[in-house]
Amino acid sequence: MPDLVILNSQDGDFKKRLADLLSFETVTDKALVETVDDIITQVRTRGDDAVFALTKQFDQHPARSVDELFVDANALKVAFEGLGNEVKTALQSSAERIFEFHQYQKESGFCFVDGLGNTLGQKVTPLDSVGIYVPGGLASYPSSVLMNAIPAKVAGVANITMVVPAPKGELNPLVLAAAHLAGVDRVITIGGAQAVAALAYGTKRITKVDKITGPGNKYVAAAKRAVFGQVGIDMIAGPSEVLVYAEGEANDDADWLAMDLLSQAEHDAVAQAIFVTTCPKQLEAVKNALDKALNTLPKADIAKTALANRGALILVRDRSEGVEVINQVAPEHLELSLDDPSQVERQIRHAGAIFLGRHTPEAIGDYCAGSNHVLPTSGTARFSSPLGVYDFTKKTSLIHCTPEGSKPLAKIADILAVEESLQAHALSARYRHGGIVSS
Amino acid sequence: MPDLVILNSQDGDFKKRLADLLSFETVTDKALVETVDDIITQVRTRGDDAVFALTKQFDQHPARSVDELFVDANALKVAFEGLGNEVKTALQSSAERIFEFHQYQKESGFCFVDGLGNTLGQKVTPLDSVGIYVPGGLASYPSSVLMNAIPAKVAGVANITMVVPAPKGELNPLVLAAAHLAGVDRVITIGGAQAVAALAYGTKRITKVDKITGPGNKYVAAAKRAVFGQVGIDMIAGPSEVLVYAEGEANDDADWLAMDLLSQAEHDAVAQAIFVTTCPKQLEAVKNALDKALNTLPKADIAKTALANRGALILVRDRSEGVEVINQVAPEHLELSLDDPSQVERQIRHAGAIFLGRHTPEAIGDYCAGSNHVLPTSGTARFSSPLGVYDFTKKTSLIHCTPEGSKPLAKIADILAVEESLQAHALSARYRHGGIVSS
Repeated sequence: MPDLVILNSQDGDFKKRLADLLSFETVTDKALVETVDDIITQVRTRGDDAVFALTKQFDQHPARSVDELFVDANALKVAFEGLGNEVKTALQSSAERIFEFHQYQKESGFCFVDGLGNTLGQKVTPLDSVGIYVPGGLASYPSSVLMNAIPAKVAGVANITMVVPAPKGELNPLVLAAAHLAGVDRVITIGGAQAVAALAYGTKRITKVDKITGPGNKYVAAAKRAVFGQVGIDMIAGPSEVLVYAEGEANDDADWLAMDLLSQAEHDAVAQAIFVTTCPKQLEAVKNALDKALNTLPKADIAKTALANRGALILVRDRSEGVEVINQVAPEHLELSLDDPSQVERQIRHAGAIFLGRHTPEAIGDYCAGSNHVLPTSGTARFSSPLGVYDFTKKTSLIHCTPEGSKPLAKIADILAVEESLQAHALSARYRHGGIVSS
Repeated sequence: MPDLVILNSQDGDFKKRLADLLSFETVTDKALVETVDDIITQVRTRGDDAVFALTKQFDQHPARSVDELFVDANALKVAFEGLGNEVKTALQSSAERIFEFHQYQKESGFCFVDGLGNTLGQKVTPLDSVGIYVPGGLASYPSSVLMNAIPAKVAGVANITMVVPAPKGELNPLVLAAAHLAGVDRVITIGGAQAVAALAYGTKRITKVDKITGPGNKYVAAAKRAVFGQVGIDMIAGPSEVLVYAEGEANDDADWLAMDLLSQAEHDAVAQAIFVTTCPKQLEAVKNALDKALNTLPKADIAKTALANRGALILVRDRSEGVEVINQVAPEHLELSLDDPSQVERQIRHAGAIFLGRHTPEAIGDYCAGSNHVLPTSGTARFSSPLGVYDFTKKTSLIHCTPEGSKPLAKIADILAVEESLQAHALSARYRHGGIVSS
């Protein structure tokens, strides 16, 4: 068993220790930023040549030209049709459920007439084009393809480009099959900062997109930060985390809870799994179940490192303390293993996704509940949302004044513009009404 | 008259010249980034002392302690009550209209039961706290305070901190009055990268916020980019622009149109004003009207520089070409000076705000239409939206499976997790159902 941190909310230094546990610095490494800036400059100045050279260098890609970095359109369909029946059906069901959930996120605009007879409103339009970054090689995840591309599709994005690095040219056929199912328009086997730069600025061969979404390593994260403004980005993803909350009720199963924690810890060495309970006995039971499970898990080494680095079992005095800890963590994934989870759920202000009850392990959300598995990590649920249809649309305000209805507004604008010393603003309003005199 | 660029869509190099006109690099200056990084590090390591010292240095603020950088709570009310009647009423009407418009942006969550009996949904919650950056000194804009704070208030944000630099301690009382009207909770007279850093990381005296919104100079923009991820930010604002479109209809007035262009150009030397028309005569008339107006405008020098740097009069062949140019520009502000603007409006895919008809000058939108004047600049309307209530809320997915409804989902998760070599994910799903065996 790793040296798992055990905290008790009654300890004097609890708040500090919890804060330390949660602190994680995202991209700030100076050398990293310089490397990434240099790659972006290369792509901006040398275009396709730079993308090709960097892909050969970093991925040992066997392509002989930029053209060969593009996956043949037919290959997506072929990959899908080549799947075994069970996997094919699973992937299809997953895609259908993601489509269904995201339908509910569609927004319509609004329109109203004010007391003066002017019409005001807002329209919602899809982005023209987006780029989806899918992390690389054989370990790349088909589920991530569905989670990124389907909301864009539901939003009505006409042009979806997927980039996925293919180290040594190797690509997971399931990723291509998922791209087919989700309706991705083209796949390019490039990755890293060079892929982000190519999507943001465009090259002769790679068409510039309006927004880039999807998780990636630290180079990808730094590149997304750098191109933000040139294009839209979804978020800078940090390591993934889960918080499982229970109160030692009779129906809890320590093995289930331990496995839920491990399903997060197996992701990578900086993933975070936190168990919070009001019951000391349950804390002990989950600790033991973790020990037992780690003996059999293929990715036990990664999970052990993650638990030792960033894992914790936390004992709280009561539900209200539990809720407080959860809101402080603002977890990406929150499981409420409770007979009646709703009462707690209503008190949670910050979480990416909440899995209620005992039969909703995070894994279901990762693959097929229908909700998005791209969620705000590292406490960013305090201010950001799951990836959704709203990330692939944008809004435009509409204002239509009538000649009569414009008058009182022109007067207000005139008065305030004069106060702000913006004379042309004032005159532009005043001209409509033959020179209103302000003050 | 400045050397105003005149383009004709029939010219061979039109597309290139239009692209050149629109190109504008946002923050990438290396020295700037280093300066800002250094300021952020100072604030993170030395806290209030650094904020105080930097504010003394950059703003020559007369404060003798950090405490004196905080504006007395009562001062906001006093400032409001001290306003002249006309200005007070104008500011109040403006605030009321902004409140009204933004009510329509409130989102509710959703909830549905799938075919298996599982409940899925999404809840929307306000951010706990936000920081609003208001650019500085006597030239700071009360309208910006309303536009940033009111959507946050409508969203239900409990804690709104406003920062506004006060060079030599000077502050526009209208800004404080606007803060009072909008329900800002506290005002701190700090600015620049140090203010952004203090809001993002917190100091002993300044409480960390969850998101920072509001425009600022290049230091503020670079600091927002740097702290993005640690906190949310709205957008990296570039220079402001307007595109006015007309077709030479009889009701057009060249003086109105010219003044609308100048109301953008007077903002700063890199603001952009573009006039697009299908009518050569009208192009000439607007050119002459600009000349005439520039003779009388107090900020004529700024406006002339802006027009010379980045302004343009563009002649297009017909409406369809006009629409194409507009969508390429993706203007922050778009005025459609047309008898029947709706037909064109429906074809516009990218714009921050559209001002329809002749009696809706941009100035009305800037102050009192009710829609937000914080809009996506420099073509970012391709992927971003006006500041709105949605910027001050975030979403949480909710998934609640029943023991029965969980089964088919656990099976799908199991199959796909095995494909992704995530054994703990598979087991976590499988455990719920006594060990489903995936192929």
